Amino acid sequence: MDKIQIVEVGPRDGWQNLKQMLTFEQKTDLIDRMVQAGVKEMEVTSFVSPKAIPQMADAAQLAAWALEKYPDVKFWALAPNFRGVENAYNAGIRHVSYVISVSESHNKANVRRTHDESFAELQRILETYPDVEITVGMATSLGCPFEGIPSKEKVLDFCQRLYDLGVRSMYLADTIGIADPRQVRELTKAVLDRFGDCDWQVHIHDTRGMGLVNTLAAIECGINKVQSTLGGLGGCPFAPGASGNTATEDLVYMLQRMGYETGIDFDKLLAASKYQKSFVDGIYSGHQMNIEAKQPPCC
Amino acid sequence: MDKIQIVEVGPRDGWQNLKQMLTFEQKTDLIDRMVQAGVKEMEVTSFVSPKAIPQMADAAQLAAWALEKYPDVKFWALAPNFRGVENAYNAGIRHVSYVISVSESHNKANVRRTHDESFAELQRILETYPDVEITVGMATSLGCPFEGIPSKEKVLDFCQRLYDLGVRSMYLADTIGIADPRQVRELTKAVLDRFGDCDWQVHIHDTRGMGLVNTLAAIECGINKVQSTLGGLGGCPFAPGASGNTATEDLVYMLQRMGYETGIDFDKLLAASKYQKSFVDGIYSGHQMNIEAKQPPCC
Repeated sequence: MDKIQIVEVGPRDGWQNLKQMLTFEQKTDLIDRMVQAGVKEMEVTSFVSPKAIPQMADAAQLAAWALEKYPDVKFWALAPNFRGVENAYNAGIRHVSYVISVSESHNKANVRRTHDESFAELQRILETYPDVEITVGMATSLGCPFEGIPSKEKVLDFCQRLYDLGVRSMYLADTIGIADPRQVRELTKAVLDRFGDCDWQVHIHDTRGMGLVNTLAAIECGINKVQSTLGGLGGCPFAPGASGNTATEDLVYMLQRMGYETGIDFDKLLAASKYQKSFVDGIYSGHQMNIEAKQPPCC
Repeated sequence: MDKIQIVEVGPRDGWQNLKQMLTFEQKTDLIDRMVQAGVKEMEVTSFVSPKAIPQMADAAQLAAWALEKYPDVKFWALAPNFRGVENAYNAGIRHVSYVISVSESHNKANVRRTHDESFAELQRILETYPDVEITVGMATSLGCPFEGIPSKEKVLDFCQRLYDLGVRSMYLADTIGIADPRQVRELTKAVLDRFGDCDWQVHIHDTRGMGLVNTLAAIECGINKVQSTLGGLGGCPFAPGASGNTATEDLVYMLQRMGYETGIDFDKLLAASKYQKSFVDGIYSGHQMNIEAKQPPCC
């Protein structure tokens, strides 16, 4: 039975898009429920400017709480720059997700840096914090709103640049949820073929309903660590109405039925998702939480 | 480039679940838009008791209108019994979808017949209407709310019984949207292996978000005719909140990006879906119609 590691990124990518401000207690309550359902890796917050994303203003407090309460869970934090990594480190975080967009135009829009600036900053991070596990999220690697679909060669060159800096953990991100399964398979095979000694993840948005099919495409090509959000919460602040990430509970349901082991208790996770939806008003892409009867009698 | 034939079943499976009664003009308006987008096969209505499904009370009128206006489109009608086929025939229909559930308990609940009764009625239909193309929908072949997942052998025996009656067109139906891609692949391979001389379709519900991944699973195992509904309209009258069928526009988008030919103009189809949603209040599972910006600038 193949094991698939789910990385729950709802507390970062799901909640950061909410208009509603969650309290610290609401966040810890939801994290408790997810961990109790069996989540073993979680992107718990991001260390960004609280002016840019007020929802993440409690990052240090939340990270410290999580690390203390659940020493067996691997808590990631996202950081877009050196300052963010420094703050994460000081809060106790030792697993950092650093994001660079494969499209330079998108990188400038997203983190206000050129590629050279982002890579130089990454180098400084790697040198300053050798005890931190860095994974680099390659935003727009499966599609960019400004530059379209990057060529395989462009993505491979980008990976090579990361590899040459010493990065050994990376993830393909379909930032705008535009990729199709054939494309995901081709790119996944290409990166695993060239950089098979690295840890790989995927981060798939469900904008066009392809969250599950694209995540499965990556898994069946050899990636065994996948990101998703409870309830499929996410959306995109610049595309009103667009649905969010792949929903963790839908993903767990599919994978477990297929015979994969995720270590997650589906019923508990679904209960956590329904609980979240009961008071968090956001854009969800999950399906299961809407089913009132567990086994509909007939359609 | 592989060709995939989309069979739009929204006018039957999507609309039959609506609480809101659509007028004849609303129906023809939506059918016009779908045909103009390139839909070449459509399940246009069902010939059932208007007491059971009042939404389909205009079946004969709608079928006659469609057949007259679009002679190049293959219009299917669903019929659950001899009487339904007779009425469909008299309205001009020559392509009938007849449904039997693989689970006998579900068949009794759905069409109030034992297997023997349903098969006997099918035989009478085939003998009475040799000029009608009959496809048999095998409801619950991928999962039953009462009996669980049927064994491969049970489904193959069911197919054999149909085959022995002369049926050469069948479809696998995930009536309650519970199947996973591995299961779809195994069953698709098994039926194509044994009954490869038949025409095959799949009818996949998106109840748990697996509409696209399961439809693709069937396609990649060799089925080239797939059913879906505009907007993913559908739902299940007995499972409040459950989402509907695979959304035609999401399916077309994915398939065309993967290099399949569907003959459908995505933009026109998406416009039809958004138009439908503007006045039809139902349970949708489509994602694309919610995207306001066609290319979200950033996520």
